[in-house]
Amino acid sequence: MQGEDSRLSMTRRDLLRLVGLSAGGAAMYAVMNRLGHAAESPYQGTPVLQGTPRGASVLILGAGLAGMVAAYELRQAGYKVQVLEYNHRAGGRNWTLRGGDTYTELGGFTQHCQFDRGHYINPGPWRIPYHHRGLLDYCKKLDIPLEPFVQVNHNAYLHSSKAFGGKPQRFRTVNADYRGNLAELLAKATQQSKLDAQVSREDQALLLESLRQWGALDEKYAYVAGPGTSNRRGYDKEPGGGLSAKPLDSQPLSLHDVLGSHLWSGLSDGEGYEFQTSLLQPVGGMGRIGEAFARKLEGVIRYNAKVTAIHQDQGGVTVSYEDARRSGHVQSARADWCICTIPLSILSQIPMNVSAPMAEAIGAVPYAASVKVGLQFKRRFWEEDEDIYGGITLTDLPINTIAYPSCDFNRPGKGVLLGAYLYGLDAYQFTAMSPEERVRRVVEYGSQIHPQYRQEFENGVAVAWHRAPYTLGCFATWTDELRDKHYDNLCQIDGRIALAGEHASYLPAWQEGAVTSALDVITRIHQRVVAGGTA
Amino acid sequence: MQGEDSRLSMTRRDLLRLVGLSAGGAAMYAVMNRLGHAAESPYQGTPVLQGTPRGASVLILGAGLAGMVAAYELRQAGYKVQVLEYNHRAGGRNWTLRGGDTYTELGGFTQHCQFDRGHYINPGPWRIPYHHRGLLDYCKKLDIPLEPFVQVNHNAYLHSSKAFGGKPQRFRTVNADYRGNLAELLAKATQQSKLDAQVSREDQALLLESLRQWGALDEKYAYVAGPGTSNRRGYDKEPGGGLSAKPLDSQPLSLHDVLGSHLWSGLSDGEGYEFQTSLLQPVGGMGRIGEAFARKLEGVIRYNAKVTAIHQDQGGVTVSYEDARRSGHVQSARADWCICTIPLSILSQIPMNVSAPMAEAIGAVPYAASVKVGLQFKRRFWEEDEDIYGGITLTDLPINTIAYPSCDFNRPGKGVLLGAYLYGLDAYQFTAMSPEERVRRVVEYGSQIHPQYRQEFENGVAVAWHRAPYTLGCFATWTDELRDKHYDNLCQIDGRIALAGEHASYLPAWQEGAVTSALDVITRIHQRVVAGGTA
Repeated sequence: MQGEDSRLSMTRRDLLRLVGLSAGGAAMYAVMNRLGHAAESPYQGTPVLQGTPRGASVLILGAGLAGMVAAYELRQAGYKVQVLEYNHRAGGRNWTLRGGDTYTELGGFTQHCQFDRGHYINPGPWRIPYHHRGLLDYCKKLDIPLEPFVQVNHNAYLHSSKAFGGKPQRFRTVNADYRGNLAELLAKATQQSKLDAQVSREDQALLLESLRQWGALDEKYAYVAGPGTSNRRGYDKEPGGGLSAKPLDSQPLSLHDVLGSHLWSGLSDGEGYEFQTSLLQPVGGMGRIGEAFARKLEGVIRYNAKVTAIHQDQGGVTVSYEDARRSGHVQSARADWCICTIPLSILSQIPMNVSAPMAEAIGAVPYAASVKVGLQFKRRFWEEDEDIYGGITLTDLPINTIAYPSCDFNRPGKGVLLGAYLYGLDAYQFTAMSPEERVRRVVEYGSQIHPQYRQEFENGVAVAWHRAPYTLGCFATWTDELRDKHYDNLCQIDGRIALAGEHASYLPAWQEGAVTSALDVITRIHQRVVAGGTA
Repeated sequence: MQGEDSRLSMTRRDLLRLVGLSAGGAAMYAVMNRLGHAAESPYQGTPVLQGTPRGASVLILGAGLAGMVAAYELRQAGYKVQVLEYNHRAGGRNWTLRGGDTYTELGGFTQHCQFDRGHYINPGPWRIPYHHRGLLDYCKKLDIPLEPFVQVNHNAYLHSSKAFGGKPQRFRTVNADYRGNLAELLAKATQQSKLDAQVSREDQALLLESLRQWGALDEKYAYVAGPGTSNRRGYDKEPGGGLSAKPLDSQPLSLHDVLGSHLWSGLSDGEGYEFQTSLLQPVGGMGRIGEAFARKLEGVIRYNAKVTAIHQDQGGVTVSYEDARRSGHVQSARADWCICTIPLSILSQIPMNVSAPMAEAIGAVPYAASVKVGLQFKRRFWEEDEDIYGGITLTDLPINTIAYPSCDFNRPGKGVLLGAYLYGLDAYQFTAMSPEERVRRVVEYGSQIHPQYRQEFENGVAVAWHRAPYTLGCFATWTDELRDKHYDNLCQIDGRIALAGEHASYLPAWQEGAVTSALDVITRIHQRVVAGGTA
């Protein structure tokens, strides 16, 4: 399959080059547009499931995005579909916590979210990259309004407890000063003929021209205080109107100070393919997607159904389950096929008769730890006092991230922000605490960056994914080695059972991984049904 | 005044340093927050006009933002206020063109905007930077919802008709490849000891570490095809879910290709202080601000009033005006003071008895040419075909800018984008054409970037600011020389007349310049009224 893709890709490129050379750029582009994203994206629109399923039935385990996409499409194609879901709600990790919601984690702690009306956090996914076409298409089908998610905010902070006396620095100043100092260094090296071996004379002239503009260098290619640098990093006194409105320039940081601060590690935060503009979010919370899917699947999803065993035979698959709220009474469901979207962290503990390679794969992939904490404050002080509208502050404190809401800007009244997004060891430590203690610590840490926390904090919720009873972790953490050994085995249809979910994708943690893995699985099952008549 | 500001700024900094050294970073930050933006921003909140105006009256010329801010505040402070406005609507350049609107430009061309309901363009200002605190405060007072304005979109294009066969390049690829190639050059120079004179050994180690991350270099500090570079610039085949989901890496452009394309000139588009994240826009169009102000000033603004003369004497100011729709019948208005916000391009043609320095200043400042063209299409092909959600494409074609709407993302149905934002000579050329011809040319140029234009175009509107009867240009273009000579003279209160507007600010073209100049002017007039009893 990969070989074919790769050949197709080359053919496409060769074709485009041919058209470009013979008919010009516009013609080439027209052809490119006609070819569409076929070779660029693994998502080629909802698969057209041609041919009748002839009464075939599919049992889907898990009403997260993967399970609901599969259920939605298979029903449309004429399959008999039922979904078993552990929770009392659909969505899985697609989930928005709002005021009035209750959440009980493993260990028995129950939290009652006390946010005011209209405020929320997304404990799971919270961003939709522009190229996650499958998910975006479902947002369109489900009529879910989207708005921009602000990732990089030049006025948010980069913070290190070990640099600048612990004083947070605006992203814009570190960004401008790192860029400017790099540009100056490279310009000097060019002027001193130190790049002659690598860069032609002609390119050196262009390089200098580009560095001046890109790095905000002065006419001597120096990065020094002046209108040009202030226009990037900010002013000591900003320009205004009327008399006494003349701006005062600010003083750039030296390369030594920027490098020593290690704050440059936050400068690429919006450069990764999943974090570039435009990032989007559903208006009202990511959970809007799961909620909308659930409405489309009313009567198809059985809630509070805890799967205890999965058994396949020649004729189909039988799944045993009990009421998730009180164990004891075991029920069963049966269908011709089973699409299992249960996270591997849970599935590895459920008896299931699949081949050894798939069973090994299921047991091999560890799950990432993550803790997210939402905090409500009496007022949106980050906007009112600090001119921060959305975006993210990064810190070396265990809380790692403070994310300001990308909605309701400039409104009076309360505000909810994401006070922490903990990873790795920090996440494990916080997972071990009670929710109240997590919130208390997060407020304490955060007040090092925003002293207003002390006055303005009202309440919070803390979700530690390793204590989420339905996932026992946040997402599958594949390594290259694990992929080589187990990925294809995990994704094969094993008799009458196939897996789907972010764990069965090259987009771990992303909803698009769940969506595209579900579409891939239903396409392959349907091919078997139509071809083999096994149903 | 400047000397005082500068001393204040130093004192503040010294104070913070003192607190930081003696009490730590958090304490320093707490003090900084308490000091607030006083020394950073020329806007320090709405001025408190203490003391009674004792019946004083103010005549305000122009119901743009400057005029309406002045009117709003002076009324609150107890002044008798009237506003004369040339147009049949308030707002001035704060203006949104919507379907059903009619606009007649100098020369007689009338355009009937045919956009569908809900679609619009802002012919004037269209972005609110996060630090334009005066304007943001009025948005809050006037209860105007804001949403993010997407400036930089990594998936929009940088386009040169002279590079890559005229094929537009995604911002992300040029950005990643320029960065990556710079980082590689600098890393090599460091490793070859060519920076030893400028960078210490210790800093060199940090520099290399930072360059690897920042430039997406591999373990040998090379910028080459691989998962790291694809994660910045995009993939030949994107990662997905299920089988056959493995991504294929893309091939970076060489430094030579990036430099030769000149596309690097678009890479700093979101780095300037007024263009950094977070940029905001009013939901429904920038005109929402002017419209809301006008509702607050109902009965205070006289519309269709064309000022023909301004005359001051010892006791007050008399302004002659006629109906802008049919000249002839001259009326007059009189008040103790006059705040004139009429653009200098118009004001220089109106008889007014002010001092020679102010008169010279009024005549000295040229106005920028600018043309904006809005186009309606049958569908949002930029989103559907090209995954572009908001943001800006830059091109060397005369149209300069294509800006995709930062709202209603991912919706089915029609869409309106800004098809051109012409400057300088290009703008003058387009100003000379009929509106229909401007639109036709813009569609023709734009189809070099988006071939879909040919199929999908429906209708358009074109505003050439030099033909706007109430401005005769877009904004005041100050040079340093003009500022030194004329700015303070322009901003002085001249007898009983004072000017306000973006032209009386260090923020030309920006609404914040109009707002802060108005606040400055009313503060100074009020001081005279209270102190001098001249009213």
